[in-house]
Amino acid sequence: MRAEIITIGDELLIGQVVDTNSAWMAERLNEIGIELYQITSVHDQREQIIKALDEAFGRADIVLTTGGLGPTNDDITKHVLCEYFGTHLIEDERVRAHIYDLYRERPDVLNKLTATQWLVPESAEILENRVGSAPLMIFHHSKQILASMPGVPYEMKIAMEEQILPYIGRQTASIIHKTLQVSGIPESALAILLEQYEASMPAALHLAYLPKDGIIRLRLSCYGEMRETEVNKWFEDLKTLVADYLIADTDEPLEVILGKILTAKGQTIATAESCTGGKLASLLSKHPGSSAFYYGSIISYDNSVKEHLLDVPVEMIKTHGVVSEEVVRRMAETVRKQLNTDLSIATSGIAGPSGGSEKKPVGTVWIAWATPAGTTAECFHLGKLREQVTDRACMKALLKMIQLCRR
Amino acid sequence: MRAEIITIGDELLIGQVVDTNSAWMAERLNEIGIELYQITSVHDQREQIIKALDEAFGRADIVLTTGGLGPTNDDITKHVLCEYFGTHLIEDERVRAHIYDLYRERPDVLNKLTATQWLVPESAEILENRVGSAPLMIFHHSKQILASMPGVPYEMKIAMEEQILPYIGRQTASIIHKTLQVSGIPESALAILLEQYEASMPAALHLAYLPKDGIIRLRLSCYGEMRETEVNKWFEDLKTLVADYLIADTDEPLEVILGKILTAKGQTIATAESCTGGKLASLLSKHPGSSAFYYGSIISYDNSVKEHLLDVPVEMIKTHGVVSEEVVRRMAETVRKQLNTDLSIATSGIAGPSGGSEKKPVGTVWIAWATPAGTTAECFHLGKLREQVTDRACMKALLKMIQLCRR
Repeated sequence: MRAEIITIGDELLIGQVVDTNSAWMAERLNEIGIELYQITSVHDQREQIIKALDEAFGRADIVLTTGGLGPTNDDITKHVLCEYFGTHLIEDERVRAHIYDLYRERPDVLNKLTATQWLVPESAEILENRVGSAPLMIFHHSKQILASMPGVPYEMKIAMEEQILPYIGRQTASIIHKTLQVSGIPESALAILLEQYEASMPAALHLAYLPKDGIIRLRLSCYGEMRETEVNKWFEDLKTLVADYLIADTDEPLEVILGKILTAKGQTIATAESCTGGKLASLLSKHPGSSAFYYGSIISYDNSVKEHLLDVPVEMIKTHGVVSEEVVRRMAETVRKQLNTDLSIATSGIAGPSGGSEKKPVGTVWIAWATPAGTTAECFHLGKLREQVTDRACMKALLKMIQLCRR
Repeated sequence: MRAEIITIGDELLIGQVVDTNSAWMAERLNEIGIELYQITSVHDQREQIIKALDEAFGRADIVLTTGGLGPTNDDITKHVLCEYFGTHLIEDERVRAHIYDLYRERPDVLNKLTATQWLVPESAEILENRVGSAPLMIFHHSKQILASMPGVPYEMKIAMEEQILPYIGRQTASIIHKTLQVSGIPESALAILLEQYEASMPAALHLAYLPKDGIIRLRLSCYGEMRETEVNKWFEDLKTLVADYLIADTDEPLEVILGKILTAKGQTIATAESCTGGKLASLLSKHPGSSAFYYGSIISYDNSVKEHLLDVPVEMIKTHGVVSEEVVRRMAETVRKQLNTDLSIATSGIAGPSGGSEKKPVGTVWIAWATPAGTTAECFHLGKLREQVTDRACMKALLKMIQLCRR
């Protein structure tokens, strides 16, 4: 069973909004065994939407559209779908009641434009949009179906999970993806290491390399008819081959892997961040359950904060510079003591674009890891772009802490 | 002049990677007056890539492809482009020298797979990829052109900025986008307020509503022939109409708007975060120049940190709860004092999925703002999803601080 996504909205094509929906939808579809064949982003424009629908129905069994369902004039998806499926709008009592309920405490929202939201295509099945006013619509097109959802990520996610995915139903076709994460080997060297393995793989299996921020994700996919035990055997062989570089045998983000280790051990962690400015804290607190192991952070963006809250002497900064082994070690050790945790991580670096020197160019980052067994520190050179430097610093920080915890 | 993007890679279609490239490229293309007509994401699959190329060349003058250029077997873009344009691979001395230079200090990367990177299509123009090994390729297709770039975001961005955009050249066509940000009015009420305005707009103008996290961005676009002064007049009229709700007359993120105000005033700010867990710190330190106004944060994810570093008495937490006006006020005032800044913001809330009660359900967030004029606090109910709650809390925190600073 094959699906396609059509995302509708000018904002995607002028770069005002990043399409995070499609990746999330793709993952969910794969989980229930539906292959996503193509994603197409089009303008809020009648002809272009119709052409995209035609093309998608030429390739896929299920077409999912997001966006263009707001009450304002720039949103035309509902009207175009009516035209495409040869139907017209009628009032829907259930949707009206739902909208009145939704805005019970905000009567200012109930105006004539909101009223257009309870007009729905006569031939469509209407599913409940629990958190918004735009109706979820299912159209049947011979044996194919189209599901139309809002583009707002929170609304789309709830619509997919509660309505659309159950509607589509659990399919029998099998798609299996299994991912390993490795580090410490260049992508091309890894490919040479796996040359024989790849050459001997059956046609139903496919191996992909996804490098990012110093980690390579190796994804083994099975699209054809192959038993899961058989795929698992191939996956285990792969694991053995890359054992020296293996970080994880799942696709989970590093902060989740670290979180699981710490939760299992009953250990806690704190951070002291300079150049990463809260990004590391934000990662460590991102997922549910993080309060079990993450205590907090002292973000010392300004040097005065390093002196007063992290006990870094002015003299130390003068002698060694703020981006130095001495300073990050002190930051890590102080925050571990102050927040009374088992472990801590500290970062100090030059994220750029300014602040670099010949000796310490932009991208230089010192990281320290403090544990009951002592403190270690390491210097990295992480590129030239601000975001790249801070993203990579977070990955290095988490990766090493995972390795230290596993020892 | 019209462009299309084709992003190539299985990882996009199974949801392993979010496509952030397209939005960034769309913005850059718009800036130089090139309309992006469609974005298509396809698998690393010969037939599908060829079909996508055919369709894109049927609509656009410029086709940009990203991805599929790595040295491993799963990457096939270069081979498919050779087939499509009827050419073949030859060795390129310049690319080889560049790759040797790139990996000077990492000889382990120079193996036979890396060597495939200096094989380039004979008929293509090769531009320098300063930061990576995959060559940037330009193909001519009668009067149309195709540019092929790596999918790694950092490499793509440098390739676009240094090579592809200058190559495409500044075009004469004009696309103008001007954006306002408003808050405090529902989308539909805003649309009614602007009904007459919209009805009287010339055909070349287009108004779009982009609501997110409590802010509505109103984008006025001009695709046709209209002088910039004329567009500006329409934009000024729009500004006047929404004056009561206006936050900004640019598309800049709130943290940038706040940063500019603070830099201009020479004021500094600190944060004390509980539920937002570093997200606010991360936003405030995200952009170059933020060290001028942002001093740092105390992230008190665990209550012990609130007690020890933010001077929140155990009694206060017992009496009022950790998500309360009393606690956020104390957090804001202490961090302002401790970090010695002019302003501060504190957050404490229940991000979920657990931790909610009938009186304080998931989504309840208290925020306090401390300024030289005193401290204010406010309670919000920001939804049910963890990420939504923390994202919206950051927006509320920044928005109110902007308003306080402007008073």
